[in-house]
Amino acid sequence: MLDGTFENPTKIFFGKGFENDIGKEIVKYSKNVLLHFGSGSIKKNGLYNRILKSLNDYDIKFTELGGVQSNPKTNLIYEGIQICKSKNIDFVLAIGGGSVIDSAKAIAIGVPYDGDFYDFFEGKENPQKAIKIGTILTISGSGSESISGAVISDLEKGTKLSYGNPLMFPVFSVMNPELTFTVPKHLTSAGIVDSISHILERYFSNTLYTECTDRMSEGIIRTLMKYGLKIMECPMDYDIRSEIMWASKIAHDNSLGFGKKQDWSCHTISHEIAAKYDFIHGNILAVIIPAWMKFVYQKNNFKFVELGKNVFELDIDIYENGKEVGEIVIRKFKEYFKNIGMPTCLRDLGNVNKDDFCEIAKKCSNTTLSGTIGNYVRLTEENIITILEASY
Amino acid sequence: MLDGTFENPTKIFFGKGFENDIGKEIVKYSKNVLLHFGSGSIKKNGLYNRILKSLNDYDIKFTELGGVQSNPKTNLIYEGIQICKSKNIDFVLAIGGGSVIDSAKAIAIGVPYDGDFYDFFEGKENPQKAIKIGTILTISGSGSESISGAVISDLEKGTKLSYGNPLMFPVFSVMNPELTFTVPKHLTSAGIVDSISHILERYFSNTLYTECTDRMSEGIIRTLMKYGLKIMECPMDYDIRSEIMWASKIAHDNSLGFGKKQDWSCHTISHEIAAKYDFIHGNILAVIIPAWMKFVYQKNNFKFVELGKNVFELDIDIYENGKEVGEIVIRKFKEYFKNIGMPTCLRDLGNVNKDDFCEIAKKCSNTTLSGTIGNYVRLTEENIITILEASY
Repeated sequence: MLDGTFENPTKIFFGKGFENDIGKEIVKYSKNVLLHFGSGSIKKNGLYNRILKSLNDYDIKFTELGGVQSNPKTNLIYEGIQICKSKNIDFVLAIGGGSVIDSAKAIAIGVPYDGDFYDFFEGKENPQKAIKIGTILTISGSGSESISGAVISDLEKGTKLSYGNPLMFPVFSVMNPELTFTVPKHLTSAGIVDSISHILERYFSNTLYTECTDRMSEGIIRTLMKYGLKIMECPMDYDIRSEIMWASKIAHDNSLGFGKKQDWSCHTISHEIAAKYDFIHGNILAVIIPAWMKFVYQKNNFKFVELGKNVFELDIDIYENGKEVGEIVIRKFKEYFKNIGMPTCLRDLGNVNKDDFCEIAKKCSNTTLSGTIGNYVRLTEENIITILEASY
Repeated sequence: MLDGTFENPTKIFFGKGFENDIGKEIVKYSKNVLLHFGSGSIKKNGLYNRILKSLNDYDIKFTELGGVQSNPKTNLIYEGIQICKSKNIDFVLAIGGGSVIDSAKAIAIGVPYDGDFYDFFEGKENPQKAIKIGTILTISGSGSESISGAVISDLEKGTKLSYGNPLMFPVFSVMNPELTFTVPKHLTSAGIVDSISHILERYFSNTLYTECTDRMSEGIIRTLMKYGLKIMECPMDYDIRSEIMWASKIAHDNSLGFGKKQDWSCHTISHEIAAKYDFIHGNILAVIIPAWMKFVYQKNNFKFVELGKNVFELDIDIYENGKEVGEIVIRKFKEYFKNIGMPTCLRDLGNVNKDDFCEIAKKCSNTTLSGTIGNYVRLTEENIITILEASY
């Protein structure tokens, strides 16, 4: 294990109905909040009214800002920051999935800052203060409900950048599996893939003596794969939604990454694809992960062997070598993603131009000083192009 | 999964050398601290001087209170509270294992309280305030470094009582595996057993849909069992100590118990044995766990089957029934505890009088309103006596 600091102060309210008394928790921090959400489905399904009633019970003033899109954009965040500044709002309640929560985090660090909040994401400045945020999670997968990071896109600049700071931990997150009952199949699956990838990005590591974490990781991958299939048949099953919701939180709260040199190649590549085409994050990952695996397993197969043994229960002794196990593991993931209705190649996602691959690879390389990405196997621009072509 | 609230705000510094700059972290909270520790071995091995140097670097005043014993006692805690009150001390730095940390937690809630701090443990009052505590862990196993609970014995009353409150979370814990290099074999093993039992007490549950947590639990049991054996041969191996230290933290920080109705029979029985005989906690558990298992597996074997499959890699299909698997699982645990040098029966621990079993069982029953303990299988006084006899 590597040396490091671990903290995760977000308080979780898991289960039914916590959102109905949300004012009780918010009032500890603020009496003047921004309600931040997405398309407005929360107004149709009654959640919005239940929240309003509770805010009213505790005399909490609010201003609303809906309209967060997937791959949340800077323009709405600028608007949110402006609203908070002009109305002295000191708390953002994010009601939604990862996009809404990430957007809220960006607003939270932007409000006390005189410059452009995107400075933080571009690595020019570090925030010294933030207003508080709380979340009511309505889509599992992003893990944003209990991490300190966010990913924000700027359409004009064509960038999708991530940034994290302990100031951005939500002070609380409400996780009620019932609120995810109506998430459509394709977004449920995209969340499953995102969660699995949050584990794999940490699991694929060359750091030794991380068995405690690796064994936990394998257990959660197994759970996510099992219930990710089951939820396709029973989208309103509370218990299945619970398993997925909790597993998705653990997948990304860094319990599974602490003490390890992590990889994050697939996320880096996926972010640059999203910056170019604005596709759904989990969908991109579903095609990039197998392509990435196919590229790296021949260079470094020890984690593939562990996955084979501990996730897919392969009797690894009967195989000739680790590469053979690697091929089976890759096939298993590919089949699984297909079985939960995910796209199998980049073209399935929309209009992708192969001529863009060089630019995408270059932008990936630009995210690091060394010009290579990943750690399990370090990838050059050329390698990234190979992966993109394999995923096409 | 059951509804519930999860929080764990303790900040962890894991790895080498953090203790050398401990003043930097403490000064965020206090400039006047109580140094709380055990037998004074920290003075011999140089740790104490390194801490003092850092306190000096940040102009932090200190008063020392050593002498914490295993099964920490009320009398030293009264003394600690008195010192803090008279010197306006508002921070306790616990340097040691679970006993020292638990003692520090009790002092922390006792200082701002006008009455007897043991009121909290006896269920008469709840603390409204506490002074802060931080820890430098020198023995793995208790998990006290990142939980909000403590267990305190009162010799005169003959009680060993546990109490937990979010006010008692350490604000930080330094976990440097090097500091555990010199822990003697028998205490290292006692810590391993304690950690395994922290997982089992949560694992043995009838709550359904806890697979995410169960799979993680099995992974950590496997890791602890593996490295618990290895450390016997290589006590100064940093990597092995790391795995044990991190696994012991996860084992008890409630990551593995959230959303479940937990059991805790073995701890309840062990605490009452300790209250009577003052034996080492982990040693008692090593004989109580197999005796408890032997009693319950015939009544409810489903978790034994899961352990058999996922921890001991049994091909459970070849066994006639779950009971057969249960017997193997029990034998495996018994053998394992023996292999790491643990006692195999109560008599090994010291002078135990079988005539005391009725009294011990009665005191166990008195810890609950219903008069029965445990949840996986509920135990009457009579059942507890049966278990005690089996462990004798």
